[in-house]
Amino acid sequence: MSDQPSAPVPGLPDRPVVTAGIVVFDGVTLLDVIGPHTAFALAGMNVQLVAETLTPISTDTSIRLPPDVTIERCPQDLDIVCVPGGSVGDAMLDIKLRDFLRARAATARYVTSVCSGALILAAAGLLDGYRAATHWASRDLLAALGVEVSTKRVCMDRNRITGGGITAGIDFGLAVVGEVLGREVAEFVQLGMEYNPKPPFNTGSPETAGADLTALFTTVTKPIFQPMADATAQVLARRVAR
Amino acid sequence: MSDQPSAPVPGLPDRPVVTAGIVVFDGVTLLDVIGPHTAFALAGMNVQLVAETLTPISTDTSIRLPPDVTIERCPQDLDIVCVPGGSVGDAMLDIKLRDFLRARAATARYVTSVCSGALILAAAGLLDGYRAATHWASRDLLAALGVEVSTKRVCMDRNRITGGGITAGIDFGLAVVGEVLGREVAEFVQLGMEYNPKPPFNTGSPETAGADLTALFTTVTKPIFQPMADATAQVLARRVAR
Repeated sequence: MSDQPSAPVPGLPDRPVVTAGIVVFDGVTLLDVIGPHTAFALAGMNVQLVAETLTPISTDTSIRLPPDVTIERCPQDLDIVCVPGGSVGDAMLDIKLRDFLRARAATARYVTSVCSGALILAAAGLLDGYRAATHWASRDLLAALGVEVSTKRVCMDRNRITGGGITAGIDFGLAVVGEVLGREVAEFVQLGMEYNPKPPFNTGSPETAGADLTALFTTVTKPIFQPMADATAQVLARRVAR
Repeated sequence: MSDQPSAPVPGLPDRPVVTAGIVVFDGVTLLDVIGPHTAFALAGMNVQLVAETLTPISTDTSIRLPPDVTIERCPQDLDIVCVPGGSVGDAMLDIKLRDFLRARAATARYVTSVCSGALILAAAGLLDGYRAATHWASRDLLAALGVEVSTKRVCMDRNRITGGGITAGIDFGLAVVGEVLGREVAEFVQLGMEYNPKPPFNTGSPETAGADLTALFTTVTKPIFQPMADATAQVLARRVAR
């Protein structure tokens, strides 16, 4: 944490500046990034998008995301490391990224993920012995990596804070703000984001969506999840080989 | 609507391609854009970020957003015009943008907004005689522009669909998908986005946040809302002068 004093939210008690590094990689799900980013930024955190190079990152949408800083130049003293999800197969096998995550996780106050970003943390060994949440469709892969899977929307286990799929990044972002900067700041941010959800349908989880829709989703998205399953198998094979 | 047949979601019934233009401008709130963008894209829509130039747009965060197309080259036959919110004072007074919105609104199937984007539609006269939702902190300004304000999270009045503040863009995006492509597709998208919200606090609206926090927010954000109030006054003065 920086020594620089500042009030992240004017009108609320002074707090130290908190620095959050959100790791981005080709194939990242944009809303996994923007949900937490918005909550963190409204709370006055210094938020950096960290990537291997400064080349704009391809996302699940047509929007490319310009990183703020490379992993070489990323601040050493991140308070929060945050790994969003998406098509994470390549990122799970990326040695440079995994080394970076392990190095920052050793000193960070919180090691966190949203959605299938938990698979990247798990591939780096950073969820060994922890409970963690992930996108519902990634739960089997997270379990295969030896992690105790939580079905909670936000799972806190010591300094690991992990969120469920995509939109869970908003609940996650508010929960992290509450944990790091206090409930008062988080409540202010929630009011600003008008997070008073009223989903127009009731299919936000496999339990409420039912077996047929869940099976359809799993079939349709197999091309997205297969590379993540393959990466999981490779991670496990290397562990056995060690 | 394009004649090109396609299945926006493989496994669901074939549907025509729907083109959505999301207008972006300096000061836009990124999550206002990315919530609907994600829902629309997962539903297989062709989504275009439209701006006056292709220069990356400054947002409420440190992330700059690269537009896809200029308003000159934007497809004539948008099915959905969507205006997100943010620091909208300049956009409310932008004659070129207002002319563009009026031209596309004349032929679009749906004219929509999220958050304080409703103020831009209202400044362009496109909410005259309609009910509309907006960010709770912008309701007074929307009413001042002669619009009947709805406190609903998503308000549908004929072909105007408007959402509340920031995170309401997710509820809005799903509601628009349901309206345009059918409930089946929207339910699929909601499952994919795991939109099963569990807000960690209960301050997502002025009603639940209470008077003190709401007053604090209003005081703290006065520098953001004052230019929007000034723009509202200018729009009204010009109307009187006509």
